[in-house]
Amino acid sequence: MASESCVTGRLVLQQCLSARLMVQPASEDQEAKYVEIGRGLVIYICFLKGATKETVQKMVKAALNTRLSSTPEGKLVSILDLPGDVLIIPQATLGGNLKGKVMQYHRNIAKEDGLELYQEFVEQCTESLHKCEKSTEQGKTVKSGTYGNVQVFRTDTNGPYTHLIEFS
Amino acid sequence: MASESCVTGRLVLQQCLSARLMVQPASEDQEAKYVEIGRGLVIYICFLKGATKETVQKMVKAALNTRLSSTPEGKLVSILDLPGDVLIIPQATLGGNLKGKVMQYHRNIAKEDGLELYQEFVEQCTESLHKCEKSTEQGKTVKSGTYGNVQVFRTDTNGPYTHLIEFS
Repeated sequence: MASESCVTGRLVLQQCLSARLMVQPASEDQEAKYVEIGRGLVIYICFLKGATKETVQKMVKAALNTRLSSTPEGKLVSILDLPGDVLIIPQATLGGNLKGKVMQYHRNIAKEDGLELYQEFVEQCTESLHKCEKSTEQGKTVKSGTYGNVQVFRTDTNGPYTHLIEFS
Repeated sequence: MASESCVTGRLVLQQCLSARLMVQPASEDQEAKYVEIGRGLVIYICFLKGATKETVQKMVKAALNTRLSSTPEGKLVSILDLPGDVLIIPQATLGGNLKGKVMQYHRNIAKEDGLELYQEFVEQCTESLHKCEKSTEQGKTVKSGTYGNVQVFRTDTNGPYTHLIEFS
């Protein structure tokens, strides 16, 4: 979709049967907090320099409307048409470039700008799911990770069918 | 690393605490067969048109020598230096391009050529791990999925730290 040099957003998408993500690490007083989803779509998201709200819109549209989810009959439909749950995981490491033996992150967006776009992405996904009758009728939800946290995560799949979609 | 148009190989790499992959689906006479790894690296791999044995070499080197694995002290080291297990998952879907609402796979390598390169990749990873004293002493292994199968998969992570590395 985009040449390497002008990529401003990157999504890695996987199907799941269930997934669980830590949204708050354990502290002295509290156990760690988690969010969970059932059958649905796991969205790893990363913003690079130059990403805007327009990039976010394109990313939401692609994530929710692309036919990436298998029905029990093996037909590919969008996550809204499945319908299924959505788990959004901020994943800054996806913005890296290999240099020698290490990944470098010079092209990643500044943290505060990334947070703003991430929140926008989560909001727009949640809104789109709420507007989808099939999803709301069947109680499907959007869950999301805490930006900047380590994303302690587990998932069970019937085949992740990993997809990469880039945006410019 | 490579412009979109000349990418011939794509890796998505994630850390795991454990992972399990189906290598043979259940049949009438037999239960499904699985391989499992402990703490280590999950390698999703896809070959596109133009990939050669030279591409495979570069991919093996990057996967095993890049500092992508966190030690308990939080230092980043290669999977050979950790040392940890390796699980290789063929993932042709990673070669897709978004077109409208579907992913298209025109640039994916022909299946038989992909199988050959995949086997080469698995062999070279296994060899490299065997040559690494630290890995063999601690009984670390390379497991791999069956090319062309659906990759029924589950994983548990302390943070996947998802990385994309492309090769041309």
